[in-house]
Amino acid sequence: MGELTDSPVRLRVVDAPDQPAPSAELAELYRGFETELLVPLWTEIGDLMPPHPRSRAVPHVWRWANLLRLADQAGRVVPVGRGGERRAIALANPALGGKPYATPTLWAAIQYLMPGEDAPEHRHTQHAFRFVVEGDGVWTVVGRDPVPMGRGDFLPQAGWAWHAHHNAADRPMAWIDGLDIPFQYATESQFFEFGRDTISDAERTTPDRSRSERLWGHPGLRPVSAPGPQPGTPLLAYRWKDTDAALRDQLELEAGGHPGTVERGHAAVRYTNPTTGGDVLPTIRAEMHRIATGVETAPSRAVGSSVYQVFDGTGTVTVGGRSWTVSRGDLFVVPSWEPLSVRSEAAPSDSDSGALDLFRFSDAPIFEALSLHRSSGEGPHQ
Amino acid sequence: MGELTDSPVRLRVVDAPDQPAPSAELAELYRGFETELLVPLWTEIGDLMPPHPRSRAVPHVWRWANLLRLADQAGRVVPVGRGGERRAIALANPALGGKPYATPTLWAAIQYLMPGEDAPEHRHTQHAFRFVVEGDGVWTVVGRDPVPMGRGDFLPQAGWAWHAHHNAADRPMAWIDGLDIPFQYATESQFFEFGRDTISDAERTTPDRSRSERLWGHPGLRPVSAPGPQPGTPLLAYRWKDTDAALRDQLELEAGGHPGTVERGHAAVRYTNPTTGGDVLPTIRAEMHRIATGVETAPSRAVGSSVYQVFDGTGTVTVGGRSWTVSRGDLFVVPSWEPLSVRSEAAPSDSDSGALDLFRFSDAPIFEALSLHRSSGEGPHQ
Amino acid sequence: MGELTDSPVRLRVVDAPDQPAPSAELAELYRGFETELLVPLWTEIGDLMPPHPRSRAVPHVWRWANLLRLADQAGRVVPVGRGGERRAIALANPALGGKPYATPTLWAAIQYLMPGEDAPEHRHTQHAFRFVVEGDGVWTVVGRDPVPMGRGDFLPQAGWAWHAHHNAADRPMAWIDGLDIPFQYATESQFFEFGRDTISDAERTTPDRSRSERLWGHPGLRPVSAPGPQPGTPLLAYRWKDTDAALRDQLELEAGGHPGTVERGHAAVRYTNPTTGGDVLPTIRAEMHRIATGVETAPSRAVGSSVYQVFDGTGTVTVGGRSWTVSRGDLFVVPSWEPLSVRSEAAPSDSDSGALDLFRFSDAPIFEALSLHRSSGEGPHQ
Amino acid sequence: MGELTDSPVRLRVVDAPDQPAPSAELAELYRGFETELLVPLWTEIGDLMPPHPRSRAVPHVWRWANLLRLADQAGRVVPVGRGGERRAIALANPALGGKPYATPTLWAAIQYLMPGEDAPEHRHTQHAFRFVVEGDGVWTVVGRDPVPMGRGDFLPQAGWAWHAHHNAADRPMAWIDGLDIPFQYATESQFFEFGRDTISDAERTTPDRSRSERLWGHPGLRPVSAPGPQPGTPLLAYRWKDTDAALRDQLELEAGGHPGTVERGHAAVRYTNPTTGGDVLPTIRAEMHRIATGVETAPSRAVGSSVYQVFDGTGTVTVGGRSWTVSRGDLFVVPSWEPLSVRSEAAPSDSDSGALDLFRFSDAPIFEALSLHRSSGEGPHQ
Repeated sequence: MGELTDSPVRLRVVDAPDQPAPSAELAELYRGFETELLVPLWTEIGDLMPPHPRSRAVPHVWRWANLLRLADQAGRVVPVGRGGERRAIALANPALGGKPYATPTLWAAIQYLMPGEDAPEHRHTQHAFRFVVEGDGVWTVVGRDPVPMGRGDFLPQAGWAWHAHHNAADRPMAWIDGLDIPFQYATESQFFEFGRDTISDAERTTPDRSRSERLWGHPGLRPVSAPGPQPGTPLLAYRWKDTDAALRDQLELEAGGHPGTVERGHAAVRYTNPTTGGDVLPTIRAEMHRIATGVETAPSRAVGSSVYQVFDGTGTVTVGGRSWTVSRGDLFVVPSWEPLSVRSEAAPSDSDSGALDLFRFSDAPIFEALSLHRSSGEGPHQ
Repeated sequence: MGELTDSPVRLRVVDAPDQPAPSAELAELYRGFETELLVPLWTEIGDLMPPHPRSRAVPHVWRWANLLRLADQAGRVVPVGRGGERRAIALANPALGGKPYATPTLWAAIQYLMPGEDAPEHRHTQHAFRFVVEGDGVWTVVGRDPVPMGRGDFLPQAGWAWHAHHNAADRPMAWIDGLDIPFQYATESQFFEFGRDTISDAERTTPDRSRSERLWGHPGLRPVSAPGPQPGTPLLAYRWKDTDAALRDQLELEAGGHPGTVERGHAAVRYTNPTTGGDVLPTIRAEMHRIATGVETAPSRAVGSSVYQVFDGTGTVTVGGRSWTVSRGDLFVVPSWEPLSVRSEAAPSDSDSGALDLFRFSDAPIFEALSLHRSSGEGPHQ
Repeated sequence: MGELTDSPVRLRVVDAPDQPAPSAELAELYRGFETELLVPLWTEIGDLMPPHPRSRAVPHVWRWANLLRLADQAGRVVPVGRGGERRAIALANPALGGKPYATPTLWAAIQYLMPGEDAPEHRHTQHAFRFVVEGDGVWTVVGRDPVPMGRGDFLPQAGWAWHAHHNAADRPMAWIDGLDIPFQYATESQFFEFGRDTISDAERTTPDRSRSERLWGHPGLRPVSAPGPQPGTPLLAYRWKDTDAALRDQLELEAGGHPGTVERGHAAVRYTNPTTGGDVLPTIRAEMHRIATGVETAPSRAVGSSVYQVFDGTGTVTVGGRSWTVSRGDLFVVPSWEPLSVRSEAAPSDSDSGALDLFRFSDAPIFEALSLHRSSGEGPHQ
Repeated sequence: MGELTDSPVRLRVVDAPDQPAPSAELAELYRGFETELLVPLWTEIGDLMPPHPRSRAVPHVWRWANLLRLADQAGRVVPVGRGGERRAIALANPALGGKPYATPTLWAAIQYLMPGEDAPEHRHTQHAFRFVVEGDGVWTVVGRDPVPMGRGDFLPQAGWAWHAHHNAADRPMAWIDGLDIPFQYATESQFFEFGRDTISDAERTTPDRSRSERLWGHPGLRPVSAPGPQPGTPLLAYRWKDTDAALRDQLELEAGGHPGTVERGHAAVRYTNPTTGGDVLPTIRAEMHRIATGVETAPSRAVGSSVYQVFDGTGTVTVGGRSWTVSRGDLFVVPSWEPLSVRSEAAPSDSDSGALDLFRFSDAPIFEALSLHRSSGEGPHQ
């Protein structure tokens, strides 16, 4: 269609069957478009305006054992320091052109720190969190507040907060990082700044709890001295003991005949910003789901994408027609509008909770803020 | 001014020095106003539009010992049942004409329940809470969810929720009730409805925690199954152990050189609605303050009124030029725009925390919602 | 009940039939309550917590001819100046104890300015508006912006804005003032400050439009230079020509088979704050209703009170069982939860629009901000 | 780096100078990454996390004469109908790989309709507007409400509204379309549905004003019958006469010594949603700027991108170091964080207003909703 020109525009027909009949006039018109840097709607409409989201990403599973093995290998070959900043290795969705994007909006990586290593301080507008599937001994230092990390802990950090990491233990530690890097890259809203090259000795100490938890970690209470609503949560650590208790409570309520679970045998909590009651980060939602053994969740789908990590137990996940058996540490992605269901197959002995525990994060706050959210059964702002 | 008429209007000059000179014409004019049910601004402006709030209420202290003694006497003389509904005895500010109003907007009462007694179910649009300065054994049943009450617990209940009380212990129990009865009376927005005369046996059982706590009492977590923001908190009990820990944490942060307290030696937490991060009730703010021994708070004042109860310790409060020594259980009121300061004189032996602990509730959410809030040093929406 | 004491508290039983049997113990208990400044709930509950709002105010009509006559008389006898501030004569609801309150929350007054007179500058936190049923020639000067006033114009002014008035015409002018004085008095949130004693010559000039209208009076447009949402409207005049056109358009849409009116033959517009789309003032809603000749509106009621002024036409209003025939300038009040219906009887010749035009203001924003709103058929935040 | 595999991942180093030294271990590690679909942060950080937004797009100008010529040619060669849906020809930013994206988030196209032609009805979640630089005679039918379009009119249409177009005139008409197609494509949130193939005869009639204007087009007024805040504006046409008057008023205020303009000689209005006072569409901001002859605006930049069309006059625009002379109809884009300044060179005779009038639309609401907004001189949510 059209002869080759030097223009960066080359017309092509993308998923759009009803095209004008070829003719010399049409060819000339298309040459004109290319010269003037124009592209008609009618050649691209099927791709650009589909009946419902058809994600460029595909469902995929990454195995924790492989991630850990490669992260450990990197720990021995690749130093951590200023410039590279972090020993973080990102999931690259196989359908996204080799970019380090788990989904079109979300970044998910394993980060690995060797004993005694520091990751230098920096800050960026990208919103971020850490989630720990196993291990402990690392402190993240956010705004000079040292925050210990352990199995099951969720550690969000709002954009533009200074942060560094320090491994105080005598063995390596791995965790996953979630960020909105692809979203901010797509929308071109990101800023980055270097901080101190080394953290202070005081920040290397090992408090039981971060200062943020002492201010914000008490249920239903806020410090009177704090300012009002903040876009990102001021609470820097959500501990596993609380998350686990909340999930257990929901299943016990269900057993007693009371509401609380999402569906039968499926408990779920969302991490929230205590200053607003809403999501922890303006662009990222994070949740923990517990699915009792033998339970299969009803298929559901929503605008926006998610990344899941198996925290505990074993199960089968089905995403848009494909199925995988997954167990502790495995990560998988659910692209926009793909239906997901999960079956918990954990034998009680496989799991601390005797169930399948799934950590999930997604880009849902973006769509809710912009009135673009839709999930199965709902229409959009009609 | 004006001769007597049958009109309900009688002109009088209220705090308004610059008046028109008396004359026959003026007298005739004023008679005309009375006949036509009119009142001019110029006779009343000083009262109606003062330079700053001049409360009709006065500061006052009610002694816990007296309240308890009279409540106990009422327990023996006045039954609890349908019609009277509650054995609640309200503070009547001495300057508010004998009305059961602690301040022009707030109701505060001691409620008393004898062993085995029930208070029947009802609901009302008035927002309410219970706060327990001593004792335990009573369950309040809110929306059929039994909620145990103990020392230091704060139990809010949003308007229009069904509720009843039951004393399962073998001794009487007292607590304080706070409501926005005067505000809803002044604005004429209140509804009331009777519920069941007796609660079910299941509701008489004694869970450790209410269902609301199992759903909403985990820090920074919300059930995914719950709807979005709710005007009143879904969490029905805020336990003393959490409040105490939060206050202790603030003072420890201060001791470590970190921010967190309101001012030196003065820790304070606000009870919040976990679905919004804001106040527990649309019209009522509730807080717990801890003032370290020997500390005197800086005088401060604000639009709106407060009621305080001493939870623990001993101190001196100064409100608008008057001072009282107060100790456990005593209640005092701070009218709108009156300056308050508090000195903690607790010997460590007088108090569990070695400090002065003050429970406070106020009408501040009303003024913040309507952009009418102002506190010392601030101007109003300028 | 109880012997006389010096206490300001005297117990009485208010609308509460189920009382404890009289006895010496009860009498002693009640004396104790009086001494300690306490009032039990069970003697007052019927008054304080009724099944639905039972307003202390009553429906009433004030005739414009009487208001004008007395205002004119006042114009000759009572000067305007510093201290009295305004020649404003307020409606005193016959059931509110002679206070200058149209309803428990709203102030409504006729204001009158003689030729050449000035009303001095001041400001107050009370939110205010002016509405003009007849006449012109007066400028109100708000924040040094002179705003001409004419028939049908609605002129809101958010709290704490400086304002003065000037009559540049050769005849007196009357208009009505609406404020939230009783609400701010009840809640004790009001501040007041004197401004300049005289306005400048520049402010006496007579622009066609205020500066506020040149910035904010264009439909759907805002100045990019302005800050974001403001609690009170920055638009200082809503002109009759626009209001009339909007009402006409609604009735024409109805005639064409399209939605737009509130009910058949009943058009209504609400004045809005262009920075939020919500009410013009945080505590006051204002609307203009047009009821086509022969139409009777369905009875409706709501929490909160309203004041109406007939702008044009003739009709019959029925409020809670009482009815009046009303015509241009007459004012009437609708207390909380009283049902209202209106029948338009205007002969086309009686009215510019051939209909009954009713200006209305109410305290509805207070209840909406606090989740206390309820109107016929709705439940409260259930 | 790494030998070729079948993996969709190929590691490359993007703008990241500090890399680990090449070695056999590193090569093996990188092969492992490719096999397991992983990409490290340290090879990509410079591209993904730059110090500030470095747009993939470039500034560019499209000439109206060329657009019109090609659109007219398309009018003769390419029919309009179901499938292709619209004769819309989009600007393709020369740095965005030939995609029909003016910027990474915004679509801008010229649409062209021949005399008597219809564009069939459909709806989509993409938010859209039309802006008319010249011509009239076309009706857009939104939700069955026919809306005439003329020079200077701005016609927004919130996502998921049914719409069709009809050219009732005897000559072709062109206008520009703006949508958030690239944003919804990047975030995968888009839905699309076909409507009726032909509009009804009633919808072909030619009202003076749309029904939406009769309901919502009166300044500061809203229909009482309408629901509350809506995410997209219910007003379907913003007429040039109002926009022009608002701009003129700002410059007159400036001439009188009063505030109102953005900077000296630079007036600007923003189109707003009358139900919220905010932007017309959840993802798109639209404004009209008027720059007086001889004035040069101060350079400014912001997160997010804009598309401008010259509505009237002549001037020079400078974007990030490049400059163009532009006149009526020309379109240019300003990528994220690129500084823009404009000099108005219009001789009064070139322009109706004697100035340079620039229509602008941008993606700013996205960043404001997500707390990612930043403009020159500001920091992000610090």
